[in-house]
Amino acid sequence: VHQSGLSAGSADRGQFRHFMLKEIHEQPQAVAETLEGRLGTDAVLDGILGPGSEELLARVRSVQILACGTSYHAGLVASLWIEGLLGLPCRVEVASEFRYRRHAVMPDCLLVTISQSGETADTLAALRRAKTEGYLGSVSVCNVPESSLVRESDLVLMTHAGPEIGVASTKAFTTQLVALLLFTLSLGRHQGLDATLAASLVDHLRALPKMLERALELDAPIEQLSTLLADKHNALFLGRGGHYPIALEGALKLKEISYIHAEAYPAGELKHGPLALVDADMPVIVVAPNNRLLEKLKSNLQEVRARGGELLVFTDDPEALGADAHTHVLSVPSIDDWLSPIIHTIPLQLLAYHTAVLKGTDVDQPRNLAKSVTVE
Amino acid sequence: VHQSGLSAGSADRGQFRHFMLKEIHEQPQAVAETLEGRLGTDAVLDGILGPGSEELLARVRSVQILACGTSYHAGLVASLWIEGLLGLPCRVEVASEFRYRRHAVMPDCLLVTISQSGETADTLAALRRAKTEGYLGSVSVCNVPESSLVRESDLVLMTHAGPEIGVASTKAFTTQLVALLLFTLSLGRHQGLDATLAASLVDHLRALPKMLERALELDAPIEQLSTLLADKHNALFLGRGGHYPIALEGALKLKEISYIHAEAYPAGELKHGPLALVDADMPVIVVAPNNRLLEKLKSNLQEVRARGGELLVFTDDPEALGADAHTHVLSVPSIDDWLSPIIHTIPLQLLAYHTAVLKGTDVDQPRNLAKSVTVE
Repeated sequence: VHQSGLSAGSADRGQFRHFMLKEIHEQPQAVAETLEGRLGTDAVLDGILGPGSEELLARVRSVQILACGTSYHAGLVASLWIEGLLGLPCRVEVASEFRYRRHAVMPDCLLVTISQSGETADTLAALRRAKTEGYLGSVSVCNVPESSLVRESDLVLMTHAGPEIGVASTKAFTTQLVALLLFTLSLGRHQGLDATLAASLVDHLRALPKMLERALELDAPIEQLSTLLADKHNALFLGRGGHYPIALEGALKLKEISYIHAEAYPAGELKHGPLALVDADMPVIVVAPNNRLLEKLKSNLQEVRARGGELLVFTDDPEALGADAHTHVLSVPSIDDWLSPIIHTIPLQLLAYHTAVLKGTDVDQPRNLAKSVTVE
Repeated sequence: VHQSGLSAGSADRGQFRHFMLKEIHEQPQAVAETLEGRLGTDAVLDGILGPGSEELLARVRSVQILACGTSYHAGLVASLWIEGLLGLPCRVEVASEFRYRRHAVMPDCLLVTISQSGETADTLAALRRAKTEGYLGSVSVCNVPESSLVRESDLVLMTHAGPEIGVASTKAFTTQLVALLLFTLSLGRHQGLDATLAASLVDHLRALPKMLERALELDAPIEQLSTLLADKHNALFLGRGGHYPIALEGALKLKEISYIHAEAYPAGELKHGPLALVDADMPVIVVAPNNRLLEKLKSNLQEVRARGGELLVFTDDPEALGADAHTHVLSVPSIDDWLSPIIHTIPLQLLAYHTAVLKGTDVDQPRNLAKSVTVE
């Protein structure tokens, strides 16, 4: 049984003004604990999904992910890993939609559910329904070992985030991402994932807690940046590829705790409608790592600038991005592109947090929301 | 060659104040023209996708849809038809995301692209890339016969919407939905779709132009309702199942021409974050037909009411919904649940239109947007 160093004193804010800020800063440790005992020298260890798991993983030809809210965003990132690294078809769906429609099961499909509490009503109901429908088996990514989701799934990969008190999920999300990358690597052992690539990803995972610590050093500059958002009523978040779900998650954080109406778009869709919203009152927050999508993103930024929109850009390569008036660039630590969504999560969490503090909302208990949605 | 009655005089607004309003009112005719020559007594006619199409359709075991903007929303509805009626796995993806990532091709997969102009840069590039990747073949749903998309696809199903001048797409969208339902029925002939169900859907399709005319009678009451929105800066649109994409499309229309920041959510996700936004300044527009999801939706409405949010509800059964203060109910003609998304599109188009007119925006040429996005 895993004993988390994050359990003791978890109901205590310590030096932090809010549980949410404490939990943001706990992420390096939470990720380290989620990795602990699961990485070998150059591969994930055998059987991290439990007894009998390797035999099941070898039979998988497709993956269906189900989740709600923040966990759904983690699922979206995972689907890009599963398709991009393994070449397996992977679908992700909001559990409350999946459970009420007739859906087709892909051949030899593994079902993956994601929930921090393991008691999310729609996710649990979707799992129960799916179990009668011919999936190969079910895997749960969850933070609560004694939860219904864990009990009712064939295989389990626990996150070791420790208790999360803030209603807006932070460390639960990043540990879900780490668990889902571990899952992808486990599956990859049976799906022809190149051993050198796998070993390099394991190295990057091992270095991740340190990288997260470096990302947390952005706290002070982001606190400053948040003054640009605090008097706004709306915001757009843009990303491409694996950073689009991170834009979705950043927008959701801002919604949840600052009550600013933030919405995320895959940047390529900007011209198909949302660009009409952009003016001086609509700041645009962009997740723009220096990967092969950067040139495309830069032309999206130019469209925003031309309409007088204020830009906040998070990037690991400010020079490649180029400076401009109306553009506030924040430099995020550079990391392998596959893991980059995890690192880019941190500044968006901090941005939502500091904006909410400036607005004086109840950060840990935002209006209208509950920590776990255990009713439909 | 199809000669559309909508071609002549299409550059003339006639009695209408804007092209968009004219095009909204042309939908019964545009849908009738899209159906013309394609329906038999109790089934779609053989070969409506062109020579050799039936042989290809018989081999299909999965479907991948690619599109942008409004066409993407049509694809989302189609995926629910393809899975729900035929039991075939179907995925839908924004073309600008698909084209830049490594994706897995499902077994025996047919590629479907959707674009009004047939020149949407990302959709065209996605098709070109996909053609090298082992899809069974490609089908294009398009409104312009001489377009690149049509030329480069194996099979074609034209919409006969006639020229669309308003930048915000209306009749192109509903005719896309009709073409995609025809496509689903064509595919169904080879995929075990029950003949009685198929015949009933054909009957409903035949009656659709008349039903659309009835829906257009809502013009005056919706003009009144739009006064509730015109002074707002934000709105949430909710739907479930096949009506969630309609909520997405309704929100996009409002964004595009009224510059109100409208965002759509599948109603079950409300409690996972966006409910924090709801207060007296955030009207909530709900697409709520009386189907098996209505009881679930009603509990979502109760959550909104409890937070003081103003509700605009579009439903085919106002009695089942029940009345309440803060709730404005608009009665939409009742139709078979599979076709209900098409009918519910109309009131949301009218709502966006009248709100924009009240706000005094340039309805046919909204700021920052172009009719066809032919650059990336």
